[in-house]
Amino acid sequence: MSAINYELIHVCKQTGARYGKLYTPHGVIETPIFMPVGTQATVKTLSPEELNDMKAQIILGNTYHLWLQPGDDIIKEAGGLHRFMRWDHPILTDSGGFQVFSLSQLRKITEEGVHFRHHKSGAKLFISPEDAIHIQNNLGSDIMMSFDECIKLPAEYGYVKQSVERTLRWAERGLKAHKNPKTQALFGIVQGGDYKDLRRLSATELVKLDFPGYSIGGLSVGESKETMYQVIEYTVPFLPLDKPRYLMGVGSPDALLEGSIRGIDMFDCVLPTRVARHGTAMTSNGRVVIRNKQYERDFTPLDHECNCYTCRNYTRAYLRHLMKAEETFGQRLVSYHNVYFLLNLMENVRHAIKEDRLLDYKEQFFEKYGLNDPKNTREF
Amino acid sequence: MSAINYELIHVCKQTGARYGKLYTPHGVIETPIFMPVGTQATVKTLSPEELNDMKAQIILGNTYHLWLQPGDDIIKEAGGLHRFMRWDHPILTDSGGFQVFSLSQLRKITEEGVHFRHHKSGAKLFISPEDAIHIQNNLGSDIMMSFDECIKLPAEYGYVKQSVERTLRWAERGLKAHKNPKTQALFGIVQGGDYKDLRRLSATELVKLDFPGYSIGGLSVGESKETMYQVIEYTVPFLPLDKPRYLMGVGSPDALLEGSIRGIDMFDCVLPTRVARHGTAMTSNGRVVIRNKQYERDFTPLDHECNCYTCRNYTRAYLRHLMKAEETFGQRLVSYHNVYFLLNLMENVRHAIKEDRLLDYKEQFFEKYGLNDPKNTREF
Repeated sequence: MSAINYELIHVCKQTGARYGKLYTPHGVIETPIFMPVGTQATVKTLSPEELNDMKAQIILGNTYHLWLQPGDDIIKEAGGLHRFMRWDHPILTDSGGFQVFSLSQLRKITEEGVHFRHHKSGAKLFISPEDAIHIQNNLGSDIMMSFDECIKLPAEYGYVKQSVERTLRWAERGLKAHKNPKTQALFGIVQGGDYKDLRRLSATELVKLDFPGYSIGGLSVGESKETMYQVIEYTVPFLPLDKPRYLMGVGSPDALLEGSIRGIDMFDCVLPTRVARHGTAMTSNGRVVIRNKQYERDFTPLDHECNCYTCRNYTRAYLRHLMKAEETFGQRLVSYHNVYFLLNLMENVRHAIKEDRLLDYKEQFFEKYGLNDPKNTREF
Repeated sequence: MSAINYELIHVCKQTGARYGKLYTPHGVIETPIFMPVGTQATVKTLSPEELNDMKAQIILGNTYHLWLQPGDDIIKEAGGLHRFMRWDHPILTDSGGFQVFSLSQLRKITEEGVHFRHHKSGAKLFISPEDAIHIQNNLGSDIMMSFDECIKLPAEYGYVKQSVERTLRWAERGLKAHKNPKTQALFGIVQGGDYKDLRRLSATELVKLDFPGYSIGGLSVGESKETMYQVIEYTVPFLPLDKPRYLMGVGSPDALLEGSIRGIDMFDCVLPTRVARHGTAMTSNGRVVIRNKQYERDFTPLDHECNCYTCRNYTRAYLRHLMKAEETFGQRLVSYHNVYFLLNLMENVRHAIKEDRLLDYKEQFFEKYGLNDPKNTREF
């Protein structure tokens, strides 16, 4: 018996997108879902109560960061990550693989694991697939990730093939090392770059190991969105219908919609909080750079159609002032809005799936957001 | 008819401290009171709801900062500072004098006003007593301050005398420039360095101008606490019983108690939020530097006796982690606690006054906080 169970409730007739429920030890999640990222045991600037208010159902923690600070042993001693950070709902942790490969410059990959240097202090570090599982067992997340090599694109076929095969061996080692399969669900991560046959190889071999869920990794690493969507299409057909599918590190509004349409159930990204800290908001009418002078005397809400705490209470002029004055309360208010915006977007997506009109909803959203404008070359 | 009214309700038989009520256009304040500082239209890291939860009765805004960013014209257009920052309770603004004299290096004082340079950009600026009043009229604060020269201590007698006399002339000019005396109460500021006769001169001359309240300025500017308390004692006897007395820029726990004992009604200080941002907390058992390694595995609350949001919900280990990880949520949680701590301290002070036992309360508080320890040379 697995720690989680996925129930597929409805497939959108217009797109094939899935509406479902994921039963976890800390509650039920409706999918498709966007998961706010709480890298260092906090979703930057926000309290657990605020995340609850905006109906966040599940959040992420980052294994790499928590391992280094405060240390997974301390979090275990605190009673696990849920208790440490006071979040009673589900938590998903990544494996640390992405950070090892993206933050650390000096690294050496062996069959045993990865040697690398601390991203700030430069100290020598090593992590094996077993270590990644051990750390996550200590953190006590509801959903854990296998340790994988995350390759930047473009990458050479020969290297990707060798890497995919090693990541498969690492996945199997992780499964064996996992101590709490009844209370923590370990996902396998599909890799394979942008090569169709390697994605298929990775997916089919992982499925043989019968993980309770599957992630699609190695995307949002430099490739175009077209490539990303193609890789999803290469992969999803090889994943079982009765298991959740998680597209790692992807959270721009367009990708959330395109991913859902292609059968993805779970998404995460630092985008909403990261851009908020620089004063950029996602609104129903597109991107708003609130620091801009044009908002100096704009006494209207950030997003007219939004019902979040920030939009119900504050003006663009006030938010612009806070950003100009470098007040963290401004970062907090824009972070609140952006996370709310994506959670609300996914609620709309779920409604649209249930009513078999996700393609219509996407067209309508894209049009208003400005994503149909060929001159719009922004990332989100 | 003044914008505010002070009602003296009880004088502590043990100390002479005053319990009273201050009626303002935005509500009634119980005194003595600590006022959290919201320099740039936000009490750093905290929301208006959080300030309400911790029963903040009145907050401060800084005229100098708001004049420069976003500009008092914008705040006026927003409907005043209350609406701009969404704080429905009383607001007090300073005159900008303190910032002009503490932040700006290059300045030239004339009878007309002060020429100085922007504390960041270096741009040339000028502010007159009339300007300071005009800005505060635009901000719409309940309580305003006269423009004054704030002198660092120690200072030469001749200079202080000349400065006090000019500040008196500035106070009179400010009174004449004030456009909304029925909705905004303008306070006179007593200056005079640590010279008894100059403090008396300043106080008695200001009282002749019949301000609705009086501030004691030019303290907490480098002098010892003994000197500060002495200056309060030099000044208070010359202030009327039926007007509130505000000790500017003072907010360490010991000074709040000593000031109350000497008949002060209002206090403000950036101390609780400033030290919080560096991870230092005020607790019932004294100062706690939460970044210290000793708290790494301390799963108890920041302050065992505190009932604030932070202490009810989080551990020292978590707060330490957030500080080490440079997460602003940590600054927010410690700021919440520190502001709550001082508000709660003043609530205890008011109770003690009503029960004629403020000296007993002070002794008990000092003992627990470690302020009676001769080896304790900390600022707070």
